[in-house]
Amino acid sequence: MEIICVGNELLIGKTLNTNAQWLADQITRFGGKITRITEIGDDVQEIASVVAEAPKRKVDFVITSGGLGPTFDDKTLQGISRAIGKRLKLNPEALKLVRSKYREISLPKRLRLTKPRVKMAILPEGSNPIPNPIGTAPGVLVEYRSTKLISLPGVPKELKAIFEKSVAEMIRRKSGNLAFYESSMIVRGVVESALSPLIDRVMRRNREVYIKSHPKGGEGRTGALIELHFSSTEKNLGKAREQVIKAIIDMVRTLGKTR
Amino acid sequence: MEIICVGNELLIGKTLNTNAQWLADQITRFGGKITRITEIGDDVQEIASVVAEAPKRKVDFVITSGGLGPTFDDKTLQGISRAIGKRLKLNPEALKLVRSKYREISLPKRLRLTKPRVKMAILPEGSNPIPNPIGTAPGVLVEYRSTKLISLPGVPKELKAIFEKSVAEMIRRKSGNLAFYESSMIVRGVVESALSPLIDRVMRRNREVYIKSHPKGGEGRTGALIELHFSSTEKNLGKAREQVIKAIIDMVRTLGKTR
Repeated sequence: MEIICVGNELLIGKTLNTNAQWLADQITRFGGKITRITEIGDDVQEIASVVAEAPKRKVDFVITSGGLGPTFDDKTLQGISRAIGKRLKLNPEALKLVRSKYREISLPKRLRLTKPRVKMAILPEGSNPIPNPIGTAPGVLVEYRSTKLISLPGVPKELKAIFEKSVAEMIRRKSGNLAFYESSMIVRGVVESALSPLIDRVMRRNREVYIKSHPKGGEGRTGALIELHFSSTEKNLGKAREQVIKAIIDMVRTLGKTR
Repeated sequence: MEIICVGNELLIGKTLNTNAQWLADQITRFGGKITRITEIGDDVQEIASVVAEAPKRKVDFVITSGGLGPTFDDKTLQGISRAIGKRLKLNPEALKLVRSKYREISLPKRLRLTKPRVKMAILPEGSNPIPNPIGTAPGVLVEYRSTKLISLPGVPKELKAIFEKSVAEMIRRKSGNLAFYESSMIVRGVVESALSPLIDRVMRRNREVYIKSHPKGGEGRTGALIELHFSSTEKNLGKAREQVIKAIIDMVRTLGKTR
């Protein structure tokens, strides 16, 4: 699976990409595996080029965030349309969703389906809109080759609401209900370069567990803190947890022997 | 310019990518323009493929973060080596940098240049190591076609220290000392779809300024808050600031007329 985040605000460092982290965390928990996250600006050609590349890598899902709103620089659907060679067209189902949202707002002037509002219902041909429980721009699902392209708005609350209500279950089904378990231990006073061969050894004895070291205080210092992160993806949570715990115990014993 | 962040921790949502945001913010301030940020895992083939793609887009700089340390899963230089077709080789200058770092640590056992430590000095042929003021793994600069590939460690403090000491000035020179200015205003009680045509109008009258709306409270609510972000990159800060202020005044007047 891949994530594509659209928005100039990411490229100028104005916005921290919490959407990508949140999505990656959720998807990992549901047994999905993210292989790439790409951030690009509000540029139709850039979006089209990144969206067109992902299905070539045969990923089952591509999730985009951002660029679905009513303003001129919301260009994600134009990019997808160009990438997959489907024309943009008013989607009646999406228009119904957008209209009902503006009905919820009381002011009569706001009821009008102005051009910027209708824009949110103009989707690539063959798309299915995904209801947005708390905002106006619907999410969009369109299939291209064997990849499901899912577009979510960039406003974090809306992205989360649509994901939880409609996308999570699709991913869970696809991943065959795999489960992810992770745990960390902190090692103090051993520099990372000295830990490296021990990690190798423990990983060779625990092949289902991935161990990664994260220096927290700089390699070059006495009393350095290093986080060792253990993770495993398995058919059920119990099995994943058991393997992680076994590897942690192995690491503790191995560390004990070397000091 | 492009940024490539390497690390499984990004793809499982364990780590928020503050490195990318910090680099993007700094580079933008120095007049550089980031066009893409890519996050990938600790996988040589993935790193090689992403690193090989960027120079095809004729970017002047590619900055990578992560994967320079002493452990088996620090694979960035292997990936770069494969991407640019240069063998990995012990770099005497880098070895000198690594050795001097371990001299700073007092314990005699730590003085030894073990295999994991020497690993940090094995760079693609033709590379120049960049001193790391606070950690052990040096940064790396290697040119490929017309692109400068700069690799920085993933530990945020080390990434920042190397960037500030050695990389910032390279970018400033390349960008011809361009300056970036940004400012925001908050609009309350106008939904984004109603603002959209006004933004269009103000942008047409202020072509050097980019205006982007960021809904802060959801389009579908009365009293919605919207941040309007104005930015401009110019030959000097005074000019950029002047253009942004002019556009903000234009926006305030335009908003006043419609209410």
